Amino acid sequence: MPKIFVKGSSKAIEYLPGQNLLQILHDNDIFIENPCNGKGSCGKCKVKITEGSLGEIPEAEKKFLSESEIKEGVRLSCLIHPESDLVIETLHKEREHKILTTGYMPEFNLSPSISKKLFEIEKPSLENQISFEDAILKSLSLDEVDFDVLKMIEPFDEAGTAVFDKDKVIAIEKGNTTDNIYGLAIDIGTTTVAADLVDMKSGKAILSSSDINPQKKFGLDVLTRITYALENEEQAVKNLQHEIVNLINKMTFEMCMSANISKEHIYEVSVAANTTMLHFLLGIKDNSIGKSPYAPVFVKSKYIKASSIGININSNGKLYCLPGVSSYIGSDIVAGAFVAKLHDSKDNILFIDIGTNGEIVLASKGKLLSCSCAAGPALEGMNISCGMRAATGAIEDMVIDKEQVRLSVIGEQQPIGICGSGILAALRELLKTGIVKKDGSFIKKEKLAEDDYRQKYIRLNGKKREFMIEDKAKTLYITQSDIRQIQLAKGAILSGFYALLNKSGISINELDKVVIAGQFGSHLSVDSLTGTGILPKEVESKITYVGNSSKTGAYMALMSDEVKKDLEKIAKTIDYMELGASDGYERLFADCLLF
Amino acid sequence: MPKIFVKGSSKAIEYLPGQNLLQILHDNDIFIENPCNGKGSCGKCKVKITEGSLGEIPEAEKKFLSESEIKEGVRLSCLIHPESDLVIETLHKEREHKILTTGYMPEFNLSPSISKKLFEIEKPSLENQISFEDAILKSLSLDEVDFDVLKMIEPFDEAGTAVFDKDKVIAIEKGNTTDNIYGLAIDIGTTTVAADLVDMKSGKAILSSSDINPQKKFGLDVLTRITYALENEEQAVKNLQHEIVNLINKMTFEMCMSANISKEHIYEVSVAANTTMLHFLLGIKDNSIGKSPYAPVFVKSKYIKASSIGININSNGKLYCLPGVSSYIGSDIVAGAFVAKLHDSKDNILFIDIGTNGEIVLASKGKLLSCSCAAGPALEGMNISCGMRAATGAIEDMVIDKEQVRLSVIGEQQPIGICGSGILAALRELLKTGIVKKDGSFIKKEKLAEDDYRQKYIRLNGKKREFMIEDKAKTLYITQSDIRQIQLAKGAILSGFYALLNKSGISINELDKVVIAGQFGSHLSVDSLTGTGILPKEVESKITYVGNSSKTGAYMALMSDEVKKDLEKIAKTIDYMELGASDGYERLFADCLLF
Repeated sequence: MPKIFVKGSSKAIEYLPGQNLLQILHDNDIFIENPCNGKGSCGKCKVKITEGSLGEIPEAEKKFLSESEIKEGVRLSCLIHPESDLVIETLHKEREHKILTTGYMPEFNLSPSISKKLFEIEKPSLENQISFEDAILKSLSLDEVDFDVLKMIEPFDEAGTAVFDKDKVIAIEKGNTTDNIYGLAIDIGTTTVAADLVDMKSGKAILSSSDINPQKKFGLDVLTRITYALENEEQAVKNLQHEIVNLINKMTFEMCMSANISKEHIYEVSVAANTTMLHFLLGIKDNSIGKSPYAPVFVKSKYIKASSIGININSNGKLYCLPGVSSYIGSDIVAGAFVAKLHDSKDNILFIDIGTNGEIVLASKGKLLSCSCAAGPALEGMNISCGMRAATGAIEDMVIDKEQVRLSVIGEQQPIGICGSGILAALRELLKTGIVKKDGSFIKKEKLAEDDYRQKYIRLNGKKREFMIEDKAKTLYITQSDIRQIQLAKGAILSGFYALLNKSGISINELDKVVIAGQFGSHLSVDSLTGTGILPKEVESKITYVGNSSKTGAYMALMSDEVKKDLEKIAKTIDYMELGASDGYERLFADCLLF
Repeated sequence: MPKIFVKGSSKAIEYLPGQNLLQILHDNDIFIENPCNGKGSCGKCKVKITEGSLGEIPEAEKKFLSESEIKEGVRLSCLIHPESDLVIETLHKEREHKILTTGYMPEFNLSPSISKKLFEIEKPSLENQISFEDAILKSLSLDEVDFDVLKMIEPFDEAGTAVFDKDKVIAIEKGNTTDNIYGLAIDIGTTTVAADLVDMKSGKAILSSSDINPQKKFGLDVLTRITYALENEEQAVKNLQHEIVNLINKMTFEMCMSANISKEHIYEVSVAANTTMLHFLLGIKDNSIGKSPYAPVFVKSKYIKASSIGININSNGKLYCLPGVSSYIGSDIVAGAFVAKLHDSKDNILFIDIGTNGEIVLASKGKLLSCSCAAGPALEGMNISCGMRAATGAIEDMVIDKEQVRLSVIGEQQPIGICGSGILAALRELLKTGIVKKDGSFIKKEKLAEDDYRQKYIRLNGKKREFMIEDKAKTLYITQSDIRQIQLAKGAILSGFYALLNKSGISINELDKVVIAGQFGSHLSVDSLTGTGILPKEVESKITYVGNSSKTGAYMALMSDEVKKDLEKIAKTIDYMELGASDGYERLFADCLLF
């Protein structure tokens, strides 16, 4: 396999030819800014090729490059598909080591809560029968050490390493272990869990891991799980907690094995998640989402012993849960608002995390206002006739032209279903071609001319019209009901969007930026978002993507005590607006249903 | 049964005629000072009889009473044996409610760490979706509440009660529970465990309980248990911990049942014990006592969650372990030094707790110096031919006269053995009658005149001489080897006594007071202590008893945060002297072996 060498990094990246360079770099945890999400339209993903050949620069790329850049070998990484060995130089070197995964991360100072200190211990003698505890306190000039720390260590009388959580000792280790200090940054989504194993000495993410949230066996969505917890008393919450804790332990174990490190050297787990997921993680029954007035048990950050909920790292290691705002605006959104710098920007920025719920935070005039829109699971491919999760075989994009429906399928194989981004792309195309009208209904086949190319895409199933995606196999289609599902989601999100603007008293033209967050959001192209009217056409040029800002926020909190404090502050400044309780919302929602 | 009414107390004490008044009052937790241990020799146990008849005042009593006292009805409680209803008045009323059990307690202000506060909680609404946690913080004007507190309580929106440990909330309870606030004061001895259930609102001990330390199955003494712990690795320390924790839980459960209170309303357990017992209680392997340089793992006080070691009170309740000084001077002795006010007395006071180890603390010239003497178990009736613990059937005192050996037997039945105080009494009599000589050897039977009354008490068992306690049944006796055991114990304690005086540079005449502590010590009469030479004759008039000052100290710490702080200070100021490592100790020890 050909290799890519990145200047300043010791590792050689082996890659399979065919992918674009941006993707190869991201897959290897080297982040390159790409606000347009790798579509070749923003010109931000420049890298310098210092060795290796890539052939001629096409016109599409040239328009983003100055003459001197072309001379120096600068190229747009999203538009080049290398096939042989390359040596490249990233143009934002200083940020490189902070990169955790694909996603934007603002710069920040590394100042983790956890640190280590080497010390020598005083040997006791017959005349000086100093206790082991007192000897440690003397060596470290401390007044006290937790009993939980003391009980974990066999007395020794030589060099030791103290693990500090700020100025408090949380572990004592025999010998010099100052090189081994690790942490975990985790985003717990209702559907997926993503974790990074971080070397807290350097700040580098060593390994990433992700998996399906195993709580799905108790319900695919938050409400079903809450109902399960409520209907089955004590044990149910324990089951939910058990599932997620087990998964975290499994992911931790596997990453530790791969990286050849001891879990005893993991001292902090930083978690961002929605409010319900955090309640379940901590074993707290929470029926707030299901029941007015939607008051959760807690939203403040938590900094507790990880072992107290069964997380299997160092027995005195910490668990940090980022702070949230309300039942519907969790710490994942606070993390996102922080990563997108909503709190210290003078611009009007709208942050949106699209999923089963669409959470929106609007920064304007120095204030942060949030709301949550009940989009439902349709946008993620659920409750859709041929819907599926974004996995191999899922249609993720399409173009309808006169001859055929051109499909982009994950894994480039025969399509077996259609995922969320594919459904939005389909709807965009259906609207563009007029197959679906502004009110969301299919055009009547009988009203089309005999030779209209659209005739072949519409079929009647009884009285119901369907769009046939694949006219050969005829197994994949989109129904009127599917369209209605998407329409409701679109109405929910767009009305939330406008409600926030109205409440804040700013117009759509005054918006400077629209930030799309989340793993799912990062798969929704600008075309699909505005083409389906989920977001208005006017913001098209203002859309950027931040990736999994929930995990990024968890990582930043892990690596900086200052960030933890900032997150607390931001969480407190985000106001929450209950859409259902706001004046004129129903009218607005109805208006927003139209495509 | 006749009754005694104590002025200021609502309860009527029913009693069986025959006991002296002092004993009846002590059995009912009404403490009367009695430095001579109820022997009628100090004149301190005065009470006023306001109603009821007791007959003439004998001469022995009269010499302690002034004319005005006689007129007012004042009597010595240890010398009167009431038979009918009485109304009495104690002469130290202000101390009455602080009394925990029989034993001296200095006055102190009640200011326990644990307190309760009633509050009203804010109801959330659709417009104000305040979390349960934030509503609590707002009500209590706090910045944070531990997650461990939050997770234990189902959200409510009415009145609640916060349980504080100083200024930190450790529990939240629904409704008004301010009347229910309890604690436990416990003395864990190597042999016995004594506990009091205390109403922390009033400071009253509601119930007392005591039991054998079940760790005895792993060894009767500390060293055997340490050996067991060392030889059987991890699980052994857990077993030792398990035994003592189980016993505490059992005693707690039984006292809660009797008093009809919920264990959820017990918020603190205060424990004093020797250093090894505390290590075992906390599940810490401690081989310090068995191995030079005798450095333990910890001596500082511990204030941890009781549930963390399995103690079954309120799940966020605290466990306070009093501070110790060294492996051999534990928190039981620090408690004793505190109760005996060694730290703020200008007098020269010697505090001594006699048991398997004799721990001595000498206060002189504002300094505290301690040592530990390896007395061995003989003084407690162990390793003695006919020895037994102080239980029914044990000889606890005796007088040898020409006609017979007059015995005091516990439970006033046929004797079946001899306990520690009985052995000392026997030795005192044997020395007094010359049956045993100053060097500890029996007098030779053949050297006595034919008609010497002592002839009948000595028998030859092969070549070994024995003292026959009961000349009828001939089943109880004391051997030369038994005498040697006691002699070693006596030598150990007396040499410690002198070593401390020597080191502190004070003479025996400069001693103002000798304080005898401990359950066992309280059964040793002044006669026996000085008559056997365990303590020198010169201190005879200076001896007082403080009872179980270990439990008293635990109680005081439970009821006062100030006491906790004082204990910390005192523990730090007590110097420890390793007898074996001190100059000329062996010579001193040999000298002290002589009776």
